[in-house]
Amino acid sequence: MSELVRVAVDAMGGDNAPGEILRGAVDALKANADLDLTLVGKEEVIRAELAKYEGVPEDRCHVLNATEVIEMAEPPVAAITKKRDSSIVKGMKLVHDGTCDAFFTAGSSGATLVGGQIIVGRIKGIERPPFAPVMPTQKGPCLLLDCGANVDPKPSMLVQFAQMGSIYMERIIGVKNPRVALYNIGAEEDKGNALAKETYPLLKALPDINFIGNIESRDIPFGAADVVVCDAFTGNAILKMYEGTAKMLLGEVKGAIMRTTVSKIGGLLIKNSLKSTMQKFNIKTYGGAPLLGLTGLVVKAHGNAKAIEVQHALEQCIQWKHEDINGAFKARMHLVDRTKTKQDAQ
Amino acid sequence: MSELVRVAVDAMGGDNAPGEILRGAVDALKANADLDLTLVGKEEVIRAELAKYEGVPEDRCHVLNATEVIEMAEPPVAAITKKRDSSIVKGMKLVHDGTCDAFFTAGSSGATLVGGQIIVGRIKGIERPPFAPVMPTQKGPCLLLDCGANVDPKPSMLVQFAQMGSIYMERIIGVKNPRVALYNIGAEEDKGNALAKETYPLLKALPDINFIGNIESRDIPFGAADVVVCDAFTGNAILKMYEGTAKMLLGEVKGAIMRTTVSKIGGLLIKNSLKSTMQKFNIKTYGGAPLLGLTGLVVKAHGNAKAIEVQHALEQCIQWKHEDINGAFKARMHLVDRTKTKQDAQ
Repeated sequence: MSELVRVAVDAMGGDNAPGEILRGAVDALKANADLDLTLVGKEEVIRAELAKYEGVPEDRCHVLNATEVIEMAEPPVAAITKKRDSSIVKGMKLVHDGTCDAFFTAGSSGATLVGGQIIVGRIKGIERPPFAPVMPTQKGPCLLLDCGANVDPKPSMLVQFAQMGSIYMERIIGVKNPRVALYNIGAEEDKGNALAKETYPLLKALPDINFIGNIESRDIPFGAADVVVCDAFTGNAILKMYEGTAKMLLGEVKGAIMRTTVSKIGGLLIKNSLKSTMQKFNIKTYGGAPLLGLTGLVVKAHGNAKAIEVQHALEQCIQWKHEDINGAFKARMHLVDRTKTKQDAQ
Repeated sequence: MSELVRVAVDAMGGDNAPGEILRGAVDALKANADLDLTLVGKEEVIRAELAKYEGVPEDRCHVLNATEVIEMAEPPVAAITKKRDSSIVKGMKLVHDGTCDAFFTAGSSGATLVGGQIIVGRIKGIERPPFAPVMPTQKGPCLLLDCGANVDPKPSMLVQFAQMGSIYMERIIGVKNPRVALYNIGAEEDKGNALAKETYPLLKALPDINFIGNIESRDIPFGAADVVVCDAFTGNAILKMYEGTAKMLLGEVKGAIMRTTVSKIGGLLIKNSLKSTMQKFNIKTYGGAPLLGLTGLVVKAHGNAKAIEVQHALEQCIQWKHEDINGAFKARMHLVDRTKTKQDAQ
């Protein structure tokens, strides 16, 4: 059997915590003999939940008591610095000190981003960790980064996003030679704001990514790129516009179907076909979005994640370790640990 | 009868020119006795098209020969400066010299934005003219600005966008006390990039707009604001993500319906209900998007505009003049012509 992959799980984060989180954790443990979980949260709550399941592999299932919970709406920096006994802070510390390889949460995005930087810490040489959700498109998954907190990044940061995104799509999602694009307002090289104009030639000059140039947002849903890089201000606009438009339009279609008796019958007749068509847009397959460039993996699932997403996210952690993604980042990006280099030179 | 509203029409611009453009122009002339059109383009082509219609009011329908056409893909600045005998350049000159009140085109967006600034010219005191398309939402129209060329604007420019957008929505689209929002990555006042953080307090302090705070893009399709302001880099991301997502998803729904015999029958049964539901997203009603803050009105329709959109865009020009929108801009925004003030002071 291969080496154990140790993941800290925020048992308290998300709309469906702790029930769905722990169900997903137990399912993942049963399905993956090389997975070792530390469930972080209110111990009595976790133990009571676990008691509902039979055959939990207890040697690979630990509980770490954390009495506080960071709520979705809390200001992230204050929450991370003050709630030292919260499941997010304690879980991330396990990654920081090397006890765990990865941390999973469906809780506060803001606290996850802040905690990732402050507690887990960046790989030396990585300027900023991007938050990189997978968007399901007509042709397959597309990684959009940054959708986190880097709202005014430098061109060199976008270059690192492109490199990390490319490696992630290739090794974790399984897209060969992923097409990397820069979000812009037009196809021409000289288009865009100052950031895009400066970033384009840097991406073009990178030898180890498949840079296909600029992409306009209208082409993203059709799957015109596998990795799209941009600042987080724009990334959030794109991601949430996709979510919002899809939700609104599919709601309208549903509303139209439910309007009359005739249309309701019509709805029944197209139901199966529509369901199988929409299956490809199901993001549950990917489980969660990684925060890239940290010393350990941090995966954030949707706040409304169900057990199946939790399980997939935990399995992504296993793959992450087996593929040695951080090793790949360091090797391909020629990351220089400046601190160490300085010390060595002295 | 009220004063004539004189509009220069680019007869050569757009995928369906000159046929649909001239059909829309003729329809508008017949329906509006106070409309006076100058059709700009290749004279023999225009005359041959016009000959197809009966009862064209010739006293209000003029032709101005322009031998060149600016193509969609041409670099805009070069096109505007070199093609002096193009329909866009000659049409815009009619607005600049006061012969016409407005200019309509379904041609090159880039050339329209550049020509608007260079040829028509800004109202004194307006820093940058925003391009402001109407997005149809679940609750009604939403004006998104800027979707043009101001990719790195200053906060003071976004303030002007908010003021102009508010007046436009109230006077032209007919939304009472329009809710103005700032696009951002979160609801809190201190969220966002440097531009958003600096702009928020300025918008909050404006006495004459109904500022409702930040809006995340996922709420835009549901109609959570009537006017959304942002830089054009983000504006284009939002607008084209909306278009692309809608096109892709409705295509998927159609594909699902056409897949089997059963689903095809289902499709027939929901057709009427779906059609009437989707009617509210029909942007043909609005005709075109204005370039705000110029000395005359410039309206740009979609490249694939049909006659009905052309007619509505031309009727928007009539309303624009009757409502004296530019006068409203000057009055409400307390625009100071700095050149004049300096001269007066001397």
